[in-house]
Amino acid sequence: MIIVLTAKATKADADAILAQIEQAGLKPLFMPGVERIVLGALGDERVLQKLHLEANPCVQEVKPILTKYKLVSREVQAHDSVVRLGNLAIGGDRFTVIAGPCSVESQEQLMGAAKMVQRYGAVALRGGAYKPRTSPYDFQGMGEEGLKLLKQANTALGLPTVSEVMEVSQVDSLCQYVDCLQIGARNMQNYGLLKAVGETQKPILLKRGLSATIEELLLAAEYIYDAGNHNIMLCERGIRTYETATRNTLDLNAVAYLKQRSHLPVIVDPSHGTGVRELITPLSKAAVAVGADGIIVEAHLNPCQALSDGHQALDEADFAHLMQSIAPFVQAAGKTL
Amino acid sequence: MIIVLTAKATKADADAILAQIEQAGLKPLFMPGVERIVLGALGDERVLQKLHLEANPCVQEVKPILTKYKLVSREVQAHDSVVRLGNLAIGGDRFTVIAGPCSVESQEQLMGAAKMVQRYGAVALRGGAYKPRTSPYDFQGMGEEGLKLLKQANTALGLPTVSEVMEVSQVDSLCQYVDCLQIGARNMQNYGLLKAVGETQKPILLKRGLSATIEELLLAAEYIYDAGNHNIMLCERGIRTYETATRNTLDLNAVAYLKQRSHLPVIVDPSHGTGVRELITPLSKAAVAVGADGIIVEAHLNPCQALSDGHQALDEADFAHLMQSIAPFVQAAGKTL
Amino acid sequence: MIIVLTAKATKADADAILAQIEQAGLKPLFMPGVERIVLGALGDERVLQKLHLEANPCVQEVKPILTKYKLVSREVQAHDSVVRLGNLAIGGDRFTVIAGPCSVESQEQLMGAAKMVQRYGAVALRGGAYKPRTSPYDFQGMGEEGLKLLKQANTALGLPTVSEVMEVSQVDSLCQYVDCLQIGARNMQNYGLLKAVGETQKPILLKRGLSATIEELLLAAEYIYDAGNHNIMLCERGIRTYETATRNTLDLNAVAYLKQRSHLPVIVDPSHGTGVRELITPLSKAAVAVGADGIIVEAHLNPCQALSDGHQALDEADFAHLMQSIAPFVQAAGKTL
Amino acid sequence: MIIVLTAKATKADADAILAQIEQAGLKPLFMPGVERIVLGALGDERVLQKLHLEANPCVQEVKPILTKYKLVSREVQAHDSVVRLGNLAIGGDRFTVIAGPCSVESQEQLMGAAKMVQRYGAVALRGGAYKPRTSPYDFQGMGEEGLKLLKQANTALGLPTVSEVMEVSQVDSLCQYVDCLQIGARNMQNYGLLKAVGETQKPILLKRGLSATIEELLLAAEYIYDAGNHNIMLCERGIRTYETATRNTLDLNAVAYLKQRSHLPVIVDPSHGTGVRELITPLSKAAVAVGADGIIVEAHLNPCQALSDGHQALDEADFAHLMQSIAPFVQAAGKTL
Repeated sequence: MIIVLTAKATKADADAILAQIEQAGLKPLFMPGVERIVLGALGDERVLQKLHLEANPCVQEVKPILTKYKLVSREVQAHDSVVRLGNLAIGGDRFTVIAGPCSVESQEQLMGAAKMVQRYGAVALRGGAYKPRTSPYDFQGMGEEGLKLLKQANTALGLPTVSEVMEVSQVDSLCQYVDCLQIGARNMQNYGLLKAVGETQKPILLKRGLSATIEELLLAAEYIYDAGNHNIMLCERGIRTYETATRNTLDLNAVAYLKQRSHLPVIVDPSHGTGVRELITPLSKAAVAVGADGIIVEAHLNPCQALSDGHQALDEADFAHLMQSIAPFVQAAGKTL
Repeated sequence: MIIVLTAKATKADADAILAQIEQAGLKPLFMPGVERIVLGALGDERVLQKLHLEANPCVQEVKPILTKYKLVSREVQAHDSVVRLGNLAIGGDRFTVIAGPCSVESQEQLMGAAKMVQRYGAVALRGGAYKPRTSPYDFQGMGEEGLKLLKQANTALGLPTVSEVMEVSQVDSLCQYVDCLQIGARNMQNYGLLKAVGETQKPILLKRGLSATIEELLLAAEYIYDAGNHNIMLCERGIRTYETATRNTLDLNAVAYLKQRSHLPVIVDPSHGTGVRELITPLSKAAVAVGADGIIVEAHLNPCQALSDGHQALDEADFAHLMQSIAPFVQAAGKTL
Repeated sequence: MIIVLTAKATKADADAILAQIEQAGLKPLFMPGVERIVLGALGDERVLQKLHLEANPCVQEVKPILTKYKLVSREVQAHDSVVRLGNLAIGGDRFTVIAGPCSVESQEQLMGAAKMVQRYGAVALRGGAYKPRTSPYDFQGMGEEGLKLLKQANTALGLPTVSEVMEVSQVDSLCQYVDCLQIGARNMQNYGLLKAVGETQKPILLKRGLSATIEELLLAAEYIYDAGNHNIMLCERGIRTYETATRNTLDLNAVAYLKQRSHLPVIVDPSHGTGVRELITPLSKAAVAVGADGIIVEAHLNPCQALSDGHQALDEADFAHLMQSIAPFVQAAGKTL
Repeated sequence: MIIVLTAKATKADADAILAQIEQAGLKPLFMPGVERIVLGALGDERVLQKLHLEANPCVQEVKPILTKYKLVSREVQAHDSVVRLGNLAIGGDRFTVIAGPCSVESQEQLMGAAKMVQRYGAVALRGGAYKPRTSPYDFQGMGEEGLKLLKQANTALGLPTVSEVMEVSQVDSLCQYVDCLQIGARNMQNYGLLKAVGETQKPILLKRGLSATIEELLLAAEYIYDAGNHNIMLCERGIRTYETATRNTLDLNAVAYLKQRSHLPVIVDPSHGTGVRELITPLSKAAVAVGADGIIVEAHLNPCQALSDGHQALDEADFAHLMQSIAPFVQAAGKTL
């Protein structure tokens, strides 16, 4: 940790802080500069944070040197983690396509979509039973009924299922009916929920918050990992920027960065990441090429009648085209679908 | 609602959509343009949303005309709402200063800070017992013990108290011990929590999410209002932008906008809104001038030893200076402290 | 154009505006709503803009329906434009790699870098002679001497050259020495410069501004096109967001969007788009997959000694690896290098 | 400067860099950490930048300790600069209101607006003769004819005038006709233009770029100051964020920050900073309270007929109300109008 003092700070101020650092069992460093004094503190930065040096009026700035996340970093585990989702291995040399409707709306709708996506090569089924909606007047999901329909689809077709958990009170029920719990973007920093899913052993699909930094995403994963659940997939789903032509800005820089700094698998959501149906296929190809381990895509037999997100759902022809389009890029990446 | 069709859409496509609009009990409008057809649908937009016209492949864009929030808007209630917090009336012609430590750390620390802020004119006490922290390795708050200390301080000094609720399971306990429940920025779209606090009658301090739009903030308030609790204060606490010189960018445009569009009181948090101790006083003066109903400020007897946010906490001299500095602006605004 | 009136606007206010619309030779539309009156105006929106209806106090909002850019849009020209850069055709089924140092520093440095990038498959040479630098104390480029070195390299190796023009007064000199003029991100809305390069017939590489919207980029291209120069390549080079792990956020959504809405070729700059050497290769692969027509990359024989941007320059081993890595993706995209 | 090495860097790598630092005449520091080696270099950071250590593959990150701007900082000059604009002193204890139309449109329009704003207390006149417009199809300004009208108004009414310069070729002509040259947001990093106005002695109103950091604004000012012109006013005019309810987000944090770090006067532009007529008065009051030295506001006798920015221009009643509204806040700030 580097501690920059204010221009007014004296040698005595510096000595007092150096003593604090030493008392905490760390190695202090004194670096008198031309314009001001700079101090250093070497050792475990987690201990250092407890000194709260940034609150000292003689201190202008405290700069951490190392990352705050540990368990999910490549420094702790150099090789890729592989997460088992049903019979699938995510994070190895397969490229996984998870698809299905935004919301579970009925048995017919779900089974129709599930068969459709399976026909063209999707290997897992997504579908929301609890829906976080910006307005209280929007469709809020089928709830537990929806979860039962996901279980039925899983039993009938063998596709492992992914569904969003919004509250601690829903965790048990989700664990009973589905194969993977999704933490949505709005809940990425709902720490009670992170700890609760961290106490299960279910695979977790952790979506990046709407304006979360990459570091905050990794720290959210660290909460789950630290609570005991190591089956975590990170999900890039677009960030909020000033651009309005697309719903969000899909941050593929983040995917490459995450693959280099963390051992966890990374899934891309081009549906929310673009919010524009015509952009889903080109961005899915880009997700393959940048090194993602899979995509999660919204598909619906009849997007016109979808109760949510219809404008970004793929219909059968679109979905067939998506799968056909990504195939050569999956091969170029040295992976298989 | 305005519906812009794609360039390829035909008159027959338009007629099919116009029939849908009419069936929904709304008035359809046909507007053939030079380059493409535009349709209109007049009536309650909440009904219109259920048509999901944006999912129709002939539709390029659907533009709502009116706001989605209703109950919290000035169109529904033209006069200012006044929220009662203990013996205080927030939203009238008093400017309310809420102050206290970021976290409750001990009885001594809390009582010391509470007496200090009361001495200089703060009329309510803030203090976190449950703390949302980005890293699992940071101090997570005292929990229920902290709430009890807040209750003690309230009994001893008569200051109503404000504390953050992070989970549905904490709502009852918070209601028992404190006078106002804060929804933090990370939970602004935690809809289960919004509904849960909406079922109480406690005053709610609803903080704007880190990158929430003004409309999303009002829709979050609408969730609480719609659930039955009308005692809501909105809180602008800075938004995330590309600027790194300050922790957040305090959006005072939003304060003026909220005061014009909504009848709810608006509180400004200059501590989180700047993240820089030296900027808190000038931005507090600006908050008064722009029309806010109050501020919520972090203060600590000894910021150097604070377990969280010490770098942005005011000490006794700073806090005295803040109160003295805002006084002439409160008077200029025609209000009293 | 859709014109939403304020809640207070009367029928008489609406009639006055409708008369204005009609006088301008457009078709007026009257849409009385439940909560307020909405008007429409059908016809050429460029004429409509001159009415300045948004300034009328009875008008709450004016919503354009159609795009403001015309000449660069697919609606005006459905097929891809192909830009000739020296002997190269950009925008067809070749994927073009432009590479070279950030700044021209010396004959030896430039020739060394040029031979190196040519050896591994780059087909055009980049190099800055005039450098826009944030600080006046940073290296500002070699100026005309640098341009002469670019001309020498072009004569010796046959690689067409790309270099940035920062001011109108430099246009003639750039035209004399190099094959393609780059408009940098900071100058994307320097309209005098856009018009000046629009009066030449040199190919223009137009970089997206640091926080320009896609529409603003297309309108900047429209300035050049409208001035008579149709040889324009658009360049996505990352946008400014709140994320700090990378220098910018490369917006590949924008690339797919631009390819769909405009007939101009699109080049991606992964060096500035990431600002991190290790991310350049994965993002280059993604650029191929998303449909870009080429990339422009910083490379240097000895990045440690580069006078600018050394941290994001590729050395020989890195550059060889980049070219090898993208090859299978170029093939998957049905293109050739 | 702090130099963090990569995890793989050896003691020998560190020694090589330490030798480089020493050769440059600086004091090297060796700080071996638990997880990696950190180095320090003490001395003038401008010299250090020339080492380009960030390009060394053993270096993970280089963190500057001190600011890059010098001449415009309070560290170099502790007291406020006062800029003379005609007979006005800007930056002392007067609060300056500059007002007038967005564009000069005719003699009648300009003189009408000028008399109107002078009547209510504006002390300087703004008006654009050269207009930077996003679309080539929008009104581009009257050019030199507009400048002559500004000169006439100045002669007739005694109000000093402010007008935008867009290109180096316009600098002489602007200097001849107006009292203060405005650098617009789009040109904040047009370095040729900054140097050109830096060679005059005219007061410069330097607007912050649309997504410029505070540091970049100060470095742009440093370009002008370094070229010899010390008569610089900084102007906060709103930054681009994800929020769409307002045209820009007025960053009053930046105003307070600039007043603390720089000795230059700071002017606020609430017209562009909000883009919404109803928000101009509350944000002007906030600008006074936060410590700005003045505001620059768009006003027009008949905003409905304005050729640009009519939606954000104040008419006579609005402008009178603005001046009346800010008066008590100017007094509270201990200043005079």
